[in-house]
Amino acid sequence: MTFRFDPPKLVDNDYKLSQSVKSRNLFKPDGLITRQDRETRNCHKSYIIWLTGLSGSGKSTIARELERVLFEKNYQVMILDGDIVRFGLNSDLGFSLEDRQENIRRIGEAAKLLMEAGNITICAFISPYNNDRDKIRKIVPDGDFIETFIDCPLEECERRDPKGLYKKARSGLIKNFTGIDDPFELPEKPEIKVNTQELSVEKSVDKILTYLSEQNYFQQPNESRELSLK
Amino acid sequence: MTFRFDPPKLVDNDYKLSQSVKSRNLFKPDGLITRQDRETRNCHKSYIIWLTGLSGSGKSTIARELERVLFEKNYQVMILDGDIVRFGLNSDLGFSLEDRQENIRRIGEAAKLLMEAGNITICAFISPYNNDRDKIRKIVPDGDFIETFIDCPLEECERRDPKGLYKKARSGLIKNFTGIDDPFELPEKPEIKVNTQELSVEKSVDKILTYLSEQNYFQQPNESRELSLK
Repeated sequence: MTFRFDPPKLVDNDYKLSQSVKSRNLFKPDGLITRQDRETRNCHKSYIIWLTGLSGSGKSTIARELERVLFEKNYQVMILDGDIVRFGLNSDLGFSLEDRQENIRRIGEAAKLLMEAGNITICAFISPYNNDRDKIRKIVPDGDFIETFIDCPLEECERRDPKGLYKKARSGLIKNFTGIDDPFELPEKPEIKVNTQELSVEKSVDKILTYLSEQNYFQQPNESRELSLK
Repeated sequence: MTFRFDPPKLVDNDYKLSQSVKSRNLFKPDGLITRQDRETRNCHKSYIIWLTGLSGSGKSTIARELERVLFEKNYQVMILDGDIVRFGLNSDLGFSLEDRQENIRRIGEAAKLLMEAGNITICAFISPYNNDRDKIRKIVPDGDFIETFIDCPLEECERRDPKGLYKKARSGLIKNFTGIDDPFELPEKPEIKVNTQELSVEKSVDKILTYLSEQNYFQQPNESRELSLK
């Protein structure tokens, strides 16, 4: 054949690749590459970091800084936020209660796909209802959904009002706005809680990274893999 | 702070990373990591390879073998097929004409997200209508949607009938089955056409790889990046 690869200039870790192929042959005769194969090859685990909080609490800012830090450390990392999905995957959805629930459901499924593709997937959505967040937690394996409550008092969010949305909500131009005329249900047992009235963006990101480190999310995936093969 | 990274054991290509960061500062003051940043870091381009064809034509088999080959060459690659999305993202959809169109639309958007995350994204769906496929082509930049017609005569697909679906369709147990009582619209200008009655799985994959190679899809992304920065 005439085709020529320009293979990516990554470390060609024969040992790891052969391990991966070997276990695939053992357990998956159909040859499908699994999430575990991807994690082993990428040399890091994949999971979902779900930022929830009021509009203006700092979710998107923290998500972007967290993405930047992880990307520059060579992690596969992807962000999902409202701007990305509202114009694409969920462009058919409005803002009724039903549509907002479907919005979060689909985002959860998209995040799961990105996670299965090997990404640390950072989601930044108000996602005000415990039920919606819990549903996403339930579709992924234990420990893969890291609920991160971006905690900031309504008064402070309204003072910041970066998009002018609180002003519109107060004047009645926007209905069912979380915090004004629609509830934000406080996360019951979030894995991480970040108070952005007290912490800077950098310190907020540090707090998330500290949790990930302490809970071994930065551990090499092949360490536990080798154990599971014994 | 107390957190400790176990960074992925990839080549830490300072030059490329600094290039990436530099251009990000130039063009994207908000710090968002772009698809181009990911491609440069992964050392390969991302795009969608969309396999379309009758049930039993060999789409999934070819998709999996193509995924395996690319994965073992160290590419970031992800597969989307019916089993993956019907139980997740599109679990709310049935098989009405409207739902099947929405099924393909969402898959296209999910594929776009995976592509933007840096993956060569392989989609294997009957996707019988030109209009549905063309809509996906239009939501991504030129050249990023590689329509691959998995061509196999209906008689041969029905003879193979790996899932017993043609039998059910012929007996009336399944309605609106593509090829039986619902049309398959032949792709008008597919980038690649693979005849699986003539070619083995390996030769079919080779044909796709040959196209990708000849059209420079395996070229290092930073080559064109450097040009565009001049």
